[in-house]
Amino acid sequence: MKSKVLKVVKIGGKLIENEAKFTEFLKDFVALEGPKILVHGGGNLATEIAGKLGYKTQMFEGRRITDADSIKVITMVYGGLINKNIVAKLQALENNAVGLCGADGLSIVSEKRPVKEVDFGFVGDVKKVNANFIDSILEQNITPVFSAISCTEEGVLLNTNGDSVAAEITQAMSSIYETELYFCFEKKGVLADAQNDDSVIEEIDREKYEELLAEKIISDGMLPKLHNCFQALEHGVKQIFLGDFKLLKKESVYTKISN
Amino acid sequence: MKSKVLKVVKIGGKLIENEAKFTEFLKDFVALEGPKILVHGGGNLATEIAGKLGYKTQMFEGRRITDADSIKVITMVYGGLINKNIVAKLQALENNAVGLCGADGLSIVSEKRPVKEVDFGFVGDVKKVNANFIDSILEQNITPVFSAISCTEEGVLLNTNGDSVAAEITQAMSSIYETELYFCFEKKGVLADAQNDDSVIEEIDREKYEELLAEKIISDGMLPKLHNCFQALEHGVKQIFLGDFKLLKKESVYTKISN
Repeated sequence: MKSKVLKVVKIGGKLIENEAKFTEFLKDFVALEGPKILVHGGGNLATEIAGKLGYKTQMFEGRRITDADSIKVITMVYGGLINKNIVAKLQALENNAVGLCGADGLSIVSEKRPVKEVDFGFVGDVKKVNANFIDSILEQNITPVFSAISCTEEGVLLNTNGDSVAAEITQAMSSIYETELYFCFEKKGVLADAQNDDSVIEEIDREKYEELLAEKIISDGMLPKLHNCFQALEHGVKQIFLGDFKLLKKESVYTKISN
Repeated sequence: MKSKVLKVVKIGGKLIENEAKFTEFLKDFVALEGPKILVHGGGNLATEIAGKLGYKTQMFEGRRITDADSIKVITMVYGGLINKNIVAKLQALENNAVGLCGADGLSIVSEKRPVKEVDFGFVGDVKKVNANFIDSILEQNITPVFSAISCTEEGVLLNTNGDSVAAEITQAMSSIYETELYFCFEKKGVLADAQNDDSVIEEIDREKYEELLAEKIISDGMLPKLHNCFQALEHGVKQIFLGDFKLLKKESVYTKISN
């Protein structure tokens, strides 16, 4: 049995943009014991800056197309501004950290999403995570902080879903550590009623998951998140927790997912 | 005697903006044998993007003031866009690399420049380089790529002179390696006549340097560069080379500086 527990925490973009909540979250993150990794989303800042730069955001059926201009802005805002500011804030809290994207040490290798009905542009799906490189940082007592940008083997930067990046990193690290994955987002957990923020389902195992799916209780936005979770559990991740910015305290209500 | 030679290469912002020259430079950089580090400037892209975002560039006697908006843009453009694209390009050339700023692993700790006549804002002077952290990357056969952003111990990101960053890193690494420092910029080397690009002085030692200073031969822009060089030599750096984007080939003319 692996003796060390590694915690991988994904923080959503909307929480990062709320300074008070994000500051509280970071203090809780720093207080976590043992090795840990932070994966962050980007929120609306990239869209805002793209607009100011005069770049048009192209959408297809509500989904963003990452064209050449968009991936530039994402690299600037997620890979630069947000990532390095989080690292600096962690340093201020005396938590040594390193800001990375998937190109660094080829830590997150992806493939460009195949063009079917529409070309979503510079968007990638994770193919391989370089666990040894990430572990070389953890072993120095340094926290890796990842923006959700991956890189093809040919050196093309790709916009990548932050939840998937967090799940894939956690899966890969499961070869070395006993792993736990935390998703901090706007809700207190998985809701039984999308309209009622207090309807958190506190425990979900595979049986319950199938049940929720059959009853069509899980809302659209939550479907890919839960799908990611059960995939991660199948690939060695021990436990997954979903909750709001106070999740890491584990004082209030949250959702725990396990097999 | 230290057996391994480490090469630290600084590439100027103007060269990065010239795609043909930069591509040729990168191929030569990849071809360098042994451990190496790349430090890059930013060129005019940050100013261009700041302008588009509606940020005003404040100047004092021809020197830029790095206000809160400017350090944001610098972190986006130098720390994100340029840095991660260089890393991706190196990966494409099968040279494993990691993009860093001074906040990462507290690799380049600086102090905010004291306010005298004028407050230059978020500008720092290097105080300490974390050679062990940088070496932990080199030992994995990975090339660190640094943007010229440093960080105070209190976690404040600061704009920092790229030449100084390169010199300070090289000095610090001299405790572990025999070090060489390369400055690639727009000129072929140190010029005896600033108006004549072919008047390269091929070798400069301390005696020659004092002579050049006394005769006021060195042009204004070159003074801090040479000052940096001789400081670095005093602090353990073995040899320093100055030249254009073809410098690493060592085929055409360049300036070699040693004690």
